[in-house]
Amino acid sequence: MCTFGKNISMKQFFLFLISFSSFFTKAQDDKTLRSIFDLALTESEAYENLRVLCKDIGPRLSGSQQADSAVVWGERILKKLNLDTVYLQKIMVPHWERGKKEKAYFFNENGENMLDVCALGGSVATGINQFINGDVIEVNSLDQVNLMEDSLVSGKIIFYNRPMNPKIISTFSAYGSCVDQRYYGAIEAAKKGAIAVIVRSMNVRLDNFPHTGSMRYEENTDSIPAFAISTNGANYLSENISKYGSLRLNLKSFCKSYPDKISYNVIGEIKGSEFPNEFITVGGHLDSWDLGEGAHDDGAGIVQSIEVLHLFNLMNIQPKHSLRVVLFMNEENGNRGGETYAEMAATENERHLMALESDRGGFSPRGFSVNGTLNQLNKIKQWSNLFEPYGIHEFQMGFAGVDINPLQDGTICLIGLSPDSQRYFDHHHSDNDVFEEVNRRELVLGAASMTSLIYLIDKYWVL
Amino acid sequence: MCTFGKNISMKQFFLFLISFSSFFTKAQDDKTLRSIFDLALTESEAYENLRVLCKDIGPRLSGSQQADSAVVWGERILKKLNLDTVYLQKIMVPHWERGKKEKAYFFNENGENMLDVCALGGSVATGINQFINGDVIEVNSLDQVNLMEDSLVSGKIIFYNRPMNPKIISTFSAYGSCVDQRYYGAIEAAKKGAIAVIVRSMNVRLDNFPHTGSMRYEENTDSIPAFAISTNGANYLSENISKYGSLRLNLKSFCKSYPDKISYNVIGEIKGSEFPNEFITVGGHLDSWDLGEGAHDDGAGIVQSIEVLHLFNLMNIQPKHSLRVVLFMNEENGNRGGETYAEMAATENERHLMALESDRGGFSPRGFSVNGTLNQLNKIKQWSNLFEPYGIHEFQMGFAGVDINPLQDGTICLIGLSPDSQRYFDHHHSDNDVFEEVNRRELVLGAASMTSLIYLIDKYWVL
Repeated sequence: MCTFGKNISMKQFFLFLISFSSFFTKAQDDKTLRSIFDLALTESEAYENLRVLCKDIGPRLSGSQQADSAVVWGERILKKLNLDTVYLQKIMVPHWERGKKEKAYFFNENGENMLDVCALGGSVATGINQFINGDVIEVNSLDQVNLMEDSLVSGKIIFYNRPMNPKIISTFSAYGSCVDQRYYGAIEAAKKGAIAVIVRSMNVRLDNFPHTGSMRYEENTDSIPAFAISTNGANYLSENISKYGSLRLNLKSFCKSYPDKISYNVIGEIKGSEFPNEFITVGGHLDSWDLGEGAHDDGAGIVQSIEVLHLFNLMNIQPKHSLRVVLFMNEENGNRGGETYAEMAATENERHLMALESDRGGFSPRGFSVNGTLNQLNKIKQWSNLFEPYGIHEFQMGFAGVDINPLQDGTICLIGLSPDSQRYFDHHHSDNDVFEEVNRRELVLGAASMTSLIYLIDKYWVL
Repeated sequence: MCTFGKNISMKQFFLFLISFSSFFTKAQDDKTLRSIFDLALTESEAYENLRVLCKDIGPRLSGSQQADSAVVWGERILKKLNLDTVYLQKIMVPHWERGKKEKAYFFNENGENMLDVCALGGSVATGINQFINGDVIEVNSLDQVNLMEDSLVSGKIIFYNRPMNPKIISTFSAYGSCVDQRYYGAIEAAKKGAIAVIVRSMNVRLDNFPHTGSMRYEENTDSIPAFAISTNGANYLSENISKYGSLRLNLKSFCKSYPDKISYNVIGEIKGSEFPNEFITVGGHLDSWDLGEGAHDDGAGIVQSIEVLHLFNLMNIQPKHSLRVVLFMNEENGNRGGETYAEMAATENERHLMALESDRGGFSPRGFSVNGTLNQLNKIKQWSNLFEPYGIHEFQMGFAGVDINPLQDGTICLIGLSPDSQRYFDHHHSDNDVFEEVNRRELVLGAASMTSLIYLIDKYWVL
């Protein structure tokens, strides 16, 4: 019997029930997210984990002893979380070493001018204890080199000096529109007979840090030494080229490639209570460049991903789908970890609901970048009001992450955490990417955002 | 004659015209904001101005020689902008000096333990070359002291140790719920006969910086010396109190208050083309505490406010209302600048449309905090889509700023820039508030946001 009075029809009553239940669900989710953020801000181990990874292990380029130590550390940390499984996934990784600090200088009327440079990752060296000497030609693009006469470039050093566009609000977009100089600069220059390249660091800020990063050679084109120069150094070099017309630059590097080495992805898993054969993956990359400490890139993503499972434990939440954290190896110079993980998933016929990567620094979280269908994006956007109290407003289509990208199969939803990007390239791939530059609250707010999104997807999504 | 065909009625045609015109206006504003942000990111002088203010002038507490230098600097910078008027507004400011570095220590079985402390602003000293010695009582609130027996407190040192609540997402709210210990702690303790107070620094992070800030005495209650202690120091002291039951603390400070001094607000103005007698004020405060360099607090707000007028110039925008930048003096320990400015505005019968303050650090802008009517907030919210491309999503009711607060008259709309707050209290009022901790892009994005909002209000609002 309906006791609500004559004026309320059964239809109205059911509508009321539906809206009450939806209100109740929203209130429940509100409460769960609040608990996730509270716990992250008070009980999170992410910051202390990052300290150990940065300070006790340090930079951990694929193939290095520190990368091995990071694997051991990662396995130990995951085992402490009492997951259902923790295991290593074997991969072969490139092994390149920088060797001694590089040198670059030129002479002008004031004498010797030293420049802040570093070899790009994977570069060949200038020769055993040899300097390369050559006149410098400054250019702004690969196309410009491509259009030059061979005779003009032959025997010269090409200096790529197009800066990241400061007008682009997302520094990742600015990076994307500039990094071709670093990737392909040596190939284009070598085709024309250049003897070396020096590339303006991918950094919007003016400072003295050279920023390394991956670069490519190709078959049938000479492999010539490639350097990055700090933004201040690039401006100084450019001014001197303008002033003197031509400059003779001296470059020296000691780097070397060695045979591939064995390494591992480190994987931990909580078995799903309802859909144990359907997977949600969260991860970052355990390797870093050899400069700095790999704090923002990507120590932050590693400790945040681990924290997701730690927070599930603290909250006593049993995921319905199997929840995996993957500490990917070798994102920086090969992505062998990401590729192997996706291959194994395909071989094992694993069904993946979604994968979430954090690889944009441990800064204040702003939103998520979704590489999936419009339908998937809209489902996520329905939760935007749950995220508002935490300053998370941006849910957009976009690239999700290098490590998880090979999982793309047309159905999986790939998601990247999007933190504030303004400071990222101040640190990226340089001596300046150190633990002290990460703020604990910004870091753990990111971990809480990731945990919240995974909680909601696990609760509401079906394959 | 309507040539659009028989199927379109006049009404439809007018509706089309209205929506076309509104689309066109939106497109125009989109373009203007884009130009403002482009110019800020490429041509802004804010960062270089901040460098000079922090590095060449340094900390500039009211009454100090550096505060005088800052006034001279501010006037010179504004005069370079070719405004219609630049002038000084005389005020009397308090003059307090810290003197030599403070000392605090206690003994335990390991010997002497030094603590990182500083005198709170306005505190009396412990006495000429004298230490104060007393047993420490740790408390968490003013109420706790209030409820204690006088005999328990008499002759003791009260240690206020309630931390900022880390669960509160906005660190300003966490500050607001905690700072009563610093403001009123000495009064409450003195009422019970305490001989000094030491207050946990208003900082969420654990580090070794003591953070100063204003405190109060009241008539008929003894003025006792007041100190801030770093968060690490507070934890260490608390642990030792727990371990040893009681501790005898030794405190020494050298600070002193002097007679009030003459100082100035620095004001620059562009006369409005349509409503020269209606004013829009933008500002921050020129004074800072004497520790660090007053970079985030509030050098950032000063150079951003100046930049608003610089960007109007660069854009060749003639405001309809008179646009004033005010570099307020003495926000930190008296607000004489803010009060004098409001009094003068009232005396001169100036009508103020709105005032915008930046005093929450030079971090990535997130939105605006509006102290006005709901109607005013809703008008601003209508522009939210114009701000979205720049990561500005938060338009909320809230406190606007200390300097502009006295302008409150029931009609004026007071607005505060709301940058990301996570790192603010790592720096606030401490040796750690230095130029190097400000990121150029974050700073100028704030200036561009302020300029954009003022541009829209000037264009669309009427009194």
